[in-house]
Amino acid sequence: MNSSDSLSVVNTEQPTTPSSHGNGGATAPLTTMPFPASKKVYIKGTQPHVNVPMREISLTPTKYTHGDASEPNAPVLVYDTSGPFTDPDIEIDIRQGLNPLKHAWILGRNDVDVLSAVSSEYGKRRATDPNLQHFRFQHVRQPLRAKSGSNVTQMHYARKGIITPEMEFIAIRETQRRAALQDPLAIHEPPRGVSQHLGQSWGAHIPETITPEFVRDEVARGRAIIPSNINHPETEPMIIGRNFLVKINSNIGNSAVASSIEEEVEKMIWSIRWGADTVMDLSTGNHIHETREWIIRNSPVPIGTVPIYQALEKVGGKAEALTWEIFRDTLIEQAEQGVDYFTIHAGVRLAYVPMTANRMTGIVSRGGSIHAKWCLAHHQENFAYTHFEEICEIMKAYDVSFSLGDGLRPGSIADANDEAQFAELETLGELTDIAWMHDVQVMIEGPGHVPMQLIHVNMQKQLEVCHEAPFYTLGPLTTDIAPGYDHITSGIGAAMIGWYGCAMLCYVTPKEHLGLPDKEDVKAGVITYKIAAHAADLAKGHPGAQHRDNALSKARFEFRWEDQFNLSLDPTTATQYHDATLPDQAAKGAHFCSMCGPHFCSMKITQDVRDYAAQKKLDEQTVIQAGLQEKAEEFKQTGSEIYT
Amino acid sequence: MNSSDSLSVVNTEQPTTPSSHGNGGATAPLTTMPFPASKKVYIKGTQPHVNVPMREISLTPTKYTHGDASEPNAPVLVYDTSGPFTDPDIEIDIRQGLNPLKHAWILGRNDVDVLSAVSSEYGKRRATDPNLQHFRFQHVRQPLRAKSGSNVTQMHYARKGIITPEMEFIAIRETQRRAALQDPLAIHEPPRGVSQHLGQSWGAHIPETITPEFVRDEVARGRAIIPSNINHPETEPMIIGRNFLVKINSNIGNSAVASSIEEEVEKMIWSIRWGADTVMDLSTGNHIHETREWIIRNSPVPIGTVPIYQALEKVGGKAEALTWEIFRDTLIEQAEQGVDYFTIHAGVRLAYVPMTANRMTGIVSRGGSIHAKWCLAHHQENFAYTHFEEICEIMKAYDVSFSLGDGLRPGSIADANDEAQFAELETLGELTDIAWMHDVQVMIEGPGHVPMQLIHVNMQKQLEVCHEAPFYTLGPLTTDIAPGYDHITSGIGAAMIGWYGCAMLCYVTPKEHLGLPDKEDVKAGVITYKIAAHAADLAKGHPGAQHRDNALSKARFEFRWEDQFNLSLDPTTATQYHDATLPDQAAKGAHFCSMCGPHFCSMKITQDVRDYAAQKKLDEQTVIQAGLQEKAEEFKQTGSEIYT
Repeated sequence: MNSSDSLSVVNTEQPTTPSSHGNGGATAPLTTMPFPASKKVYIKGTQPHVNVPMREISLTPTKYTHGDASEPNAPVLVYDTSGPFTDPDIEIDIRQGLNPLKHAWILGRNDVDVLSAVSSEYGKRRATDPNLQHFRFQHVRQPLRAKSGSNVTQMHYARKGIITPEMEFIAIRETQRRAALQDPLAIHEPPRGVSQHLGQSWGAHIPETITPEFVRDEVARGRAIIPSNINHPETEPMIIGRNFLVKINSNIGNSAVASSIEEEVEKMIWSIRWGADTVMDLSTGNHIHETREWIIRNSPVPIGTVPIYQALEKVGGKAEALTWEIFRDTLIEQAEQGVDYFTIHAGVRLAYVPMTANRMTGIVSRGGSIHAKWCLAHHQENFAYTHFEEICEIMKAYDVSFSLGDGLRPGSIADANDEAQFAELETLGELTDIAWMHDVQVMIEGPGHVPMQLIHVNMQKQLEVCHEAPFYTLGPLTTDIAPGYDHITSGIGAAMIGWYGCAMLCYVTPKEHLGLPDKEDVKAGVITYKIAAHAADLAKGHPGAQHRDNALSKARFEFRWEDQFNLSLDPTTATQYHDATLPDQAAKGAHFCSMCGPHFCSMKITQDVRDYAAQKKLDEQTVIQAGLQEKAEEFKQTGSEIYT
Repeated sequence: MNSSDSLSVVNTEQPTTPSSHGNGGATAPLTTMPFPASKKVYIKGTQPHVNVPMREISLTPTKYTHGDASEPNAPVLVYDTSGPFTDPDIEIDIRQGLNPLKHAWILGRNDVDVLSAVSSEYGKRRATDPNLQHFRFQHVRQPLRAKSGSNVTQMHYARKGIITPEMEFIAIRETQRRAALQDPLAIHEPPRGVSQHLGQSWGAHIPETITPEFVRDEVARGRAIIPSNINHPETEPMIIGRNFLVKINSNIGNSAVASSIEEEVEKMIWSIRWGADTVMDLSTGNHIHETREWIIRNSPVPIGTVPIYQALEKVGGKAEALTWEIFRDTLIEQAEQGVDYFTIHAGVRLAYVPMTANRMTGIVSRGGSIHAKWCLAHHQENFAYTHFEEICEIMKAYDVSFSLGDGLRPGSIADANDEAQFAELETLGELTDIAWMHDVQVMIEGPGHVPMQLIHVNMQKQLEVCHEAPFYTLGPLTTDIAPGYDHITSGIGAAMIGWYGCAMLCYVTPKEHLGLPDKEDVKAGVITYKIAAHAADLAKGHPGAQHRDNALSKARFEFRWEDQFNLSLDPTTATQYHDATLPDQAAKGAHFCSMCGPHFCSMKITQDVRDYAAQKKLDEQTVIQAGLQEKAEEFKQTGSEIYT
């Protein structure tokens, strides 16, 4: 199916393509079912329209082996990136796009103009091209832009002491699990184990409760960003910073070789379903502009792009033909569509390019190599560097955040932590200072391919030279020898750098280096990175992070199989794997699985021992401390009957 | 297919089951093909029959974009665990078993008796049971046992200053890549990048060349073990220790619920094909004894077991019915079959059991829970602890190594690093001292489920209390929330603890906690753990470890797709993923893949820039340093034609 085929379908009178809840047939390409045993709940804030979505997972009661006694298990709330697509009460129509929930907040600040038409030359051309009619999203909103002299960034508000509704939304969202937390251990007498281990935070300072004021302070300080383009009011506000939950990004995008616009929208929905906190649209094929509109209008998470890709398309793929004017027009075009952050490789300076000549794998960043080629061809400094303050002016008129690209990141273990990489990082630090002078939000991109022993210094240097602006890394991959498994080689590095303080982890799929990821690859990448991010939260000692682990382990120990599946990152796969050998519904109540069989489940043995002690009103401690040999005998007599 | 079905096939006159090279049909269950572009090579040592197998991967030449010039790329040698199954010159017949290559070495030391029959009561019974005739391996060898008063452990020889052929074999095997190494960077002028980063070894001391004397010294010191039962002469000697390559173990074993004997043999072959250095047979179903014989006779890697599982079978699954005598008979039975290491949970002391009562997930080690239940039932100390010196006597008569089991390892993040876990570890340290007094080889098993920030202290404590005996950990899993992906949650922890000094990593498959792994799960587990082990070798700075990464990255950069696939851990998957979007053979020569498409491959752009500079006899450095504006112009003029 090519783009033309799929989108012409969208425009028919009886669409088969956009699905809504309840009537999506087997062919509907959108994934909108809620998760099993889960419902969407919303927590209201104090400011208008602050209504924070979360997913509540219901659990079954704990049943004791002997007797009919049971104890309820409190539901578990989890951070939910999936947006309205998992809320059965919301009608989904991708032709309409999502509800613009931030719109009233943005207009309420009285610092934006509603433009009568898009400002970019390219945007104008696309808007009026009759050949694009059947590709085009039909409800393009009039773009917003800061009033002349105004600055609409969240950082600007934060520095003026304003707590925006976005900040309150985030505070509730980040704290949710703790506010609603009922420790699954607490219902036992005596409590079993600890509720959370002490973390090692490497300098992060995560408060017990995330308040709106804390959010404001972190944003003002530049230590966190809220990607929040005023032209993307559909986003549910989220934050990226070292003192918040570690976030993950998933990349989507058609290439010249494969995939269609609509597949990209579904990839976005699919990515956020499994936990992507932001999505980058890296499309490089036809109809980039139109694809992006469809994605943004339907995305409840911030969208990032690499504008140089599209700029290059506009000059027929010839890097040397790029100009500042074309790049600038592209930034405005995308800012008015609602892109929340731009990867800009302004740190690829002319003088650094030769540092890559003796590398094993040269320049592997696409954006980096485009800028490098331009620099060499013109023997001029990178235009994104020389025009950086003009870029800041654009960013602050729409609140687009910088994701300062690491165009010289290492593409192999051999090239890790070299002169070129760190020279560019120093420049990114300088650019951070400039952006912050404009109250423009900044995060910094990082590598790449780095062996484990060299990961920590990457984080340390970034914090130091970029003044604690959030770090956003791709992996890093910890070895080069496993193409086909680079979600894993990089998941290792991602977990570690997340622990050390990286704020967002850009996923890598199993197809990395080999081809365009399909849906299963996207899912594998997202889940792997949710694992890495969560492992990092645990290791940092993020308050409440261990709650879900505890609830799942308790369910596992008590043979509440369905609860175990429902609490997992991927209930579908967990259930399938279990059912591969024990498909009967009855096995879901069984006190064993096919791994060990009925007589050898150690958890069952342990629980039998514990239950026995409880039944006899003797815990193991008493037996031993009192040295009651006769009790041990009694235990032995009846113990032989434990396996029933 | 149950065991009975499959093994009756093995004994027919026209077997369809055992395959040999060249004639294996589509239904042959044994996987015996060599890897693509790979051949088996053997390096001779100085002692007789020291003939060390390696895999040599051929590479294609580097072709330059302009002109016909090309440069050869030296083949890459890799450590090869796959045994004779990947050597097309060796006829495989699993009914005969492998060539007993160590037999002459063992008999040549004149310290063993050839027994006329097996010594264990159980072994005798099985050997004469007519009902087992069709299950039984038909060429059971007469068992060997140390002559009275002799000690046949590699540690004993090492301490006497003897360099055994096993030790020389290992020295060649561990050094191979460096001896044969031709740095892929060296053929470039100037050399690109570094050949290897400096490691951070956390106290490991890995010499540039592993000599036989170094192997001897490490074994004598107890810092490494050579699992090497005299009744398993089919093994290709290997070593487990912090100053050697990090090893991985794969578990196989039928359970009462699923799988057959023959499937287990193929699982072993399959495991070692992908890189398992040792295999544990954890069978708990019927015919454990017979399954084990088949596996050992066909295994070129050491086999480990947990004898308490079989002992429990012998008493009908009732832990409290176990006796020292039954356990002892099981040890002898298995030692005479050739098991190379025993997991023995001698550290689960009576006094520690109550420490687990308030845990989130109690005792999750099967062996641990069996011993714990026995201790409580009898109110007696663990018989494996009280009889530990008698066990040592058995171990040294066959050279079975201890793998001192962590019966009280944590089964959830909540239970990590608790009192019970570390109390047991202290005891394992005491038992190590006792084993070493008998010159018996020891490694120590470790957790389990541990959040990242608590991993390092596990390694530190183990080195300290167990006097640097090799550590052998299961994962650890760094979060509990991803059943279905526990190869990944644990691969993260495994890579880290391998870096910190863990000598062997016990794999975890995607089915962990959910069911019995199938072949694809085994492969996913093994590959994930090869990644973890290799990432650890790189991070420790193991000499030569980066060679394969460099060769693969060079191939990747030069668009030698087939070389990239062939150098990877899993060429099949890498090729399939690439071919999913670009199936044509022509694409294997293309300078792009479907991920970025033909115009956007950054590697191509970089290489174009570099090629261009070379062609013009101008490197980028010269252009910039000389500030030659006219050269830049010239570059620009022709640069537009670079994409051809």
